[in-house]
This record gives sequence, structure tokens and C-alpha cells, in this order.
Amino acid sequence: MSGYVKVVGLGPGAPDLVTPEVQRALDDATDIVGYGPYVERVPRCSGVRTHVSDNRQERQRAQLALALAAAGSQVVVVSSGDPGVFAMASAVFEVMDEHPQWQRVAVQVLPGVTAMLAAAARVGAPLGHDFCVVNLSDNLKPWPLIERRVLAAVDTDMALALYNPRSNARPDGFGRVLDLLQHRCEPARWVVLARAVYTPQESVRSLPLCQVSADMVDMRTLVIVGSSRTKRVGPFVYTPRQVTTA
Amino acid sequence: MSGYVKVVGLGPGAPDLVTPEVQRALDDATDIVGYGPYVERVPRCSGVRTHVSDNRQERQRAQLALALAAAGSQVVVVSSGDPGVFAMASAVFEVMDEHPQWQRVAVQVLPGVTAMLAAAARVGAPLGHDFCVVNLSDNLKPWPLIERRVLAAVDTDMALALYNPRSNARPDGFGRVLDLLQHRCEPARWVVLARAVYTPQESVRSLPLCQVSADMVDMRTLVIVGSSRTKRVGPFVYTPRQVTTA
Repeated sequence: MSGYVKVVGLGPGAPDLVTPEVQRALDDATDIVGYGPYVERVPRCSGVRTHVSDNRQERQRAQLALALAAAGSQVVVVSSGDPGVFAMASAVFEVMDEHPQWQRVAVQVLPGVTAMLAAAARVGAPLGHDFCVVNLSDNLKPWPLIERRVLAAVDTDMALALYNPRSNARPDGFGRVLDLLQHRCEPARWVVLARAVYTPQESVRSLPLCQVSADMVDMRTLVIVGSSRTKRVGPFVYTPRQVTTA
Repeated sequence: MSGYVKVVGLGPGAPDLVTPEVQRALDDATDIVGYGPYVERVPRCSGVRTHVSDNRQERQRAQLALALAAAGSQVVVVSSGDPGVFAMASAVFEVMDEHPQWQRVAVQVLPGVTAMLAAAARVGAPLGHDFCVVNLSDNLKPWPLIERRVLAAVDTDMALALYNPRSNARPDGFGRVLDLLQHRCEPARWVVLARAVYTPQESVRSLPLCQVSADMVDMRTLVIVGSSRTKRVGPFVYTPRQVTTA
């Protein structure tokens, strides 16, 4: 059998959210490539080689995966959540774009449950109407663009899912976005802080925007900011499907 | 055991994309409630009651599910894709909000692979950078708001995932958005038309915006409009992770 790369999403954490399609790809792999904590999630089978790398090594991981596949290996690149949302799939295609010799490698992307869907499900349905998805990391894009996108969502009353709100390397980003939101939106707007959903460290809270502070989030938190119409019923937060004014 | 409602996502179509968590909920159900074609997807077990309703009957379905659960049934409400993205979860909470007698029913939302993630995976990684998710149905919101949201995404160079682009009841919506996009964006911008992904009827095409016409989509199509930076490599379409200018 000739080599291939399958870029797969492991879902947010629990084995219960790994799709059968992804599970089969893992079972058939000769090589598993990924960021350490994600590779750790895959039960070790004898005979499977694992290739673990650090965070921010996406490009090197993609190169390794393509090189292994070109040499005949059946390679699975693991991402958390969905591989196409702020994860490994784009990195693989970027590297393929730069290295024509790898453009004949068979590549397939297998979808998964991305963090915002798992976080939303845990509290109700805050993404039940139109929404925007923004990565707050400015490693790879200028900060002003992040602010423009957040404001575009708020000005057209879409909910917002914010990935990577804060890291040690970028301690201030979420605080700046929070300032922006607290100046622009009503204080009672619902915000969901969902940390490490579907893992033993899960903690999820819903609170009004005026009560959110920057130190409540870390790199494992997914933030959902509701629209002006997002509501609470019992313990749930949801966004109604209907809007009557433009 | 007392009654409950689990609102679950079946993924885009294939049993291979149903999470083990959702599969277990289906196995444990006494009653399955949903739109006919989605209930059809669930293999029939003896002793399970099914309650099938038509499209656009979301509110009645939610009422039935809550009433059955309040009477002690173990109810699973099935959605295609993810239940929190333009599907049944919001409808259940809307009905709960209006009927305080049902606020003590145990409700849980179980996430799934929503159509845009499956569509994106099929062509590469067009949602690999920030993006907006807009439902083009104007059943429940004014049309001008849809246009404002589409323009907000384009003006801040986010990719767009467009759900429900066209139906018999709304034949013109996608054509109007397409006009808007064709006037505002460069003709070579990549567009993905993904119909019925992960079903036997799947057809997926990627083409430049200037070659897209309204009759290419129907109610089973998910449309992804790339950002200005979305590229093609081999048969794949992807959005790079990096942006250098705001």
C-alpha cells in the first residue's frame, strides 16, 4: 500500500467524541504525528511509531508527515477539535504549496467536533444564530485586524467564538478585546467561558459581560460572546433563531 | 429512570461521522423525535417509538420532545450536523423559555460534526483562518441583516460559510448574495459548493467566484466563500494561517 497523510480531528478531548472514521484512521496508521498532548490522547498500539513535537511547530510537523508519506508510511496527523479550524490542515497545505515534490502525496482531511461546538453544547445553544469565529492569537496576523473582525461581528450583532484567547506569550490580547466589548456592548450580554470541555479539567461558566475579567481565561479556554439577543433559561444560555429588526 | 431530552447531532450523513456519545444516546432512547429524513438515518431498534415531522416544524417537535420527557420518556431529538448550528437546540430552549412547566426537564445537547466542517474537510482547509457563519434563510430574520453580515465578513476579509443558501420557498436569496459578492470581491476568489457531503449524493466543486451561478446550489448545498487569501494547491483549496497586513 502506498503512503498517505490523513489529517484528523480528535474532538475536544473525550474518546466519546472521536468519530468512527477518525478511529479507523488511527487504527490503520503506521505513524502518528502531532503536538505532544494530542498524541498522548491516542491509545498506543504496538508497532505504531509516534512523532511528537512542541506547540508552534506546525510547519515542521507537516513536513515530517509529508516526507514520511512520500516514503510509503500511512501517516495520521492529529489535531484537537477539527483539523480545519485553527489546526493542522492549513499547515499541511501550506507546506505542500511550497514543496512541489509533495503534491503527489495522497492527503485527506477527516473532520471532528471543534471546541466551539462542544463548548456551546455544554451550556445550551449560544451559536444558534449567525456567528463569527476569530482566533485571538496574533502570532500570524496583525492585532488591528483582530479588533476589526471582532467589531464587525458586534456591529452586525453576530455571536462570537474566540479561540486561543490568551497564552503565556500573549498575555494581553483577551484583555484588549474585552475592553473593546465592554465599551461597545450592553453590560448584561451573556459570555460563556468554557475551559477544557470534555476533559477531566472541564469548567464552564456563563456570566454577564460586565462581570468578565481577563484573568478568567487561559490557553485552554474557548470564549463565546453572545449576540444582543442571547438569553438565559434555567441553567442554559441560547441564542434564539428569530430576529425581527435589521 | 426519569425522563430527559438529549438534542443530538448526527453529523452530515454517514454513520461513520456519528460520535460514540450520540450513538449511545440513540441506543438508550425510548423515543426519537425529528425531521423525517434525519429520523430515517437512525437504524430502527425494536421498541423505540419514532415521531416524525415535516421541515419547519421545529417548535412543534421541541414541544413534543419536552412533553414526552416530562411524562418520563428518554427522548432523543435528532438534528443533522451539529444540533447547535441552525438546528434543533435553539428551538428546544425557545419552547422551554415560553413554558415554565418544562424548565425542570433534564436537557442535554450532544455536539456533532456540522456541515461546514465536513464540507471544508472534503476540499482541504478553506476555513483555516477566521470566518463567519451565516444562514441565508430569511424565514426568521430580515433580508437586509443577511446582507450586512455578508458584507461585514467580506470587508474584514474573513471566509464565509453559508448555510441554507436556497430553497423552493426562497429561490432568490443566494442569487442576491452572489451579486453582492461578485461586485465586491475579486473574480478569482475561491468558492466551494459542497452538496450532500458524506452521503451517496455527495458532489463537491471548487471554482472561482466569477464562474459561480445561482442555479448551482440547492437546499442541500453548503457554500464556502474563501477570503482574498484562499488558495489552491493541487486539488485542494485552503486558507493560509498567516496574514501580514491589516
